[in-house]
Amino acid sequence: MTTNNTSILVSADQLSTFISSALQSAGLPDQDAIKVAGLMADADLQGSDGHGVIRLPQYVKRILAGGINTRPNIRVVTERAAMAVVDGDNGMGHLVMSHAVDIAIEKARTAGVAWVGARASNHAGPASLYVRKPIEQNMIALYFAVGNANHLPPWGGMDMLLSTNPIAVGIPAGSEPAVVLDMATTVAAYGKVKAKAKRGEQMPEGWMIDRQGKPLLDPKRADEGFLLPIGGHKGYGLALIVGLLAGTLNGAAMGRDVVDFNHDHVTPTNTGQSVLVIDLQAFGDPAAFKSSIDHLVRDLRSSERLPNVERIWLPGEQSHLRRQTYSAQGIPLSAPMLADLVVLAAELKIAPLVTNQA
Amino acid sequence: MTTNNTSILVSADQLSTFISSALQSAGLPDQDAIKVAGLMADADLQGSDGHGVIRLPQYVKRILAGGINTRPNIRVVTERAAMAVVDGDNGMGHLVMSHAVDIAIEKARTAGVAWVGARASNHAGPASLYVRKPIEQNMIALYFAVGNANHLPPWGGMDMLLSTNPIAVGIPAGSEPAVVLDMATTVAAYGKVKAKAKRGEQMPEGWMIDRQGKPLLDPKRADEGFLLPIGGHKGYGLALIVGLLAGTLNGAAMGRDVVDFNHDHVTPTNTGQSVLVIDLQAFGDPAAFKSSIDHLVRDLRSSERLPNVERIWLPGEQSHLRRQTYSAQGIPLSAPMLADLVVLAAELKIAPLVTNQA
Repeated sequence: MTTNNTSILVSADQLSTFISSALQSAGLPDQDAIKVAGLMADADLQGSDGHGVIRLPQYVKRILAGGINTRPNIRVVTERAAMAVVDGDNGMGHLVMSHAVDIAIEKARTAGVAWVGARASNHAGPASLYVRKPIEQNMIALYFAVGNANHLPPWGGMDMLLSTNPIAVGIPAGSEPAVVLDMATTVAAYGKVKAKAKRGEQMPEGWMIDRQGKPLLDPKRADEGFLLPIGGHKGYGLALIVGLLAGTLNGAAMGRDVVDFNHDHVTPTNTGQSVLVIDLQAFGDPAAFKSSIDHLVRDLRSSERLPNVERIWLPGEQSHLRRQTYSAQGIPLSAPMLADLVVLAAELKIAPLVTNQA
Repeated sequence: MTTNNTSILVSADQLSTFISSALQSAGLPDQDAIKVAGLMADADLQGSDGHGVIRLPQYVKRILAGGINTRPNIRVVTERAAMAVVDGDNGMGHLVMSHAVDIAIEKARTAGVAWVGARASNHAGPASLYVRKPIEQNMIALYFAVGNANHLPPWGGMDMLLSTNPIAVGIPAGSEPAVVLDMATTVAAYGKVKAKAKRGEQMPEGWMIDRQGKPLLDPKRADEGFLLPIGGHKGYGLALIVGLLAGTLNGAAMGRDVVDFNHDHVTPTNTGQSVLVIDLQAFGDPAAFKSSIDHLVRDLRSSERLPNVERIWLPGEQSHLRRQTYSAQGIPLSAPMLADLVVLAAELKIAPLVTNQA
């Protein structure tokens, strides 16, 4: 929760305006650019700083290289009362998944529960972005995604056939913040490894192993090893299952077919994501449910603590507090991040990011 | 996969017949006893030996103590096209969840996807039991359950407000065995701790910690510590989410309300479980999907291996092989397990278990 002293503060609106301008300049239609930019700034607002504006240069590069369809025909290709598959037509993942979530909410309102999967989608930012709207509608949401680069081998193996395939779950509460779990199925997301390398720090044991199965601590040697799944074979199982539910089931990429979008900016990624939405109304009185969640949250938070533990957190609580703080004070952007955006603005010949300190 | 030399082999039919006889003697109607016994023997047949016949003495004790309703009115209390909540009326969990799965399959056939939750249920054996039937129907199934004793505090805490809340996922394959994940959200299930204690062995570091947060290695001191969740705070988040989806959402016990059925044989447990069923037919051609799973399974299995790794396993593959071996050769029961069943037979005045070596 501490912000780096050298960082500059920017409001979500300022950030969103800049991102939108960059995406429009790269070729996205105005309304689409505004929508994607809003979601990206929202990611930074909740502190998901590995999935917000930091991705903008890469997105722009892919759009300019023709790796993204800027005029996609995002459409339902098959559906039933409680499910649909959306073909994203290689559009921006944020647009595809926003549409998918809207369909899921609509269907869940009638059927009680609905599952919507996407194929031919793209990287869509942090998983938890897509459980927020259902929560506002008194709905539980589960989100599964195939990551856009394979860094995880099967347990005991060395061929990187799996990604950090994340899970997000959002559960509405009453007066407490919603319970929002957002986790990679690996001990560390790959972005954290990159961040350690940038800061010149070593990784803790347990994040990665090398090809001898020994702990790999130097993040600059990350290419020589693999991420470790949470709980050993269990996390491997979870990563696989998430990939099957978000990828294979939707006819999207999984396993060998996953395109490493860090190195390939042209080949369509055929990214797959799935969202499950559960309408509380179908199960009983949503207010009673949310009150139960409040009680449980307070029980957990007020648990006796282990020595040296200052506070017990609920999943999503830190993001919730960051959102409050950053809304009031601004989102901190590091100097290198700002420098990247200055370069991007110059390349695209757009107005630079306006910050509170500018 | 090795069987203890001192164990006795018994067929699934022999085991099922004995279990059924015990349950009937304790007071279950014949048809219900046969159904529960079949599922319990099936658990042993796939090597889920912590959740099969080993639970029989405890189930019988609870039934005789009046803690189970032997004439339950298991019924749907609320439903929509793609969901239902079943009230188990405190019947045997196996009966409640079998019914719930049947409803989910039926609804998924029309709606494409269906979620069925249960309240007033009871311990129902290993999670993976309930994904088998959907798999046979070309359906994916996800199963969530609230465990029947709290051994897990919130991350950083000491109040045991959570259980090992398991997840099972079953995904049909073509000529390969189905992918079946069945995992507790803790590093070790509590039954494994008890087994270590029985064998006089130490636990590996990472299974449990004591109230100082230090590794607890002596399983005889398990009461002085807590289980650890997989991936630290991530597993805590998963255990919580599973509990909310299987317990709170269904109006079943969660948190403080969970009854420790190891020590209390009378109070209704109000156990909650949920199952999500996804009909492959709604998404496209099930044969094509299953063929994709086969290809992916083979890619994973044939991955280059780390030093000293003999084989890469897929989730559910070891259970699948055990099922084949035990079907052909018999299910191994340890001498202490057999002794317990001899005592039980004498108490209930029923015929003893017939074994291959008897």
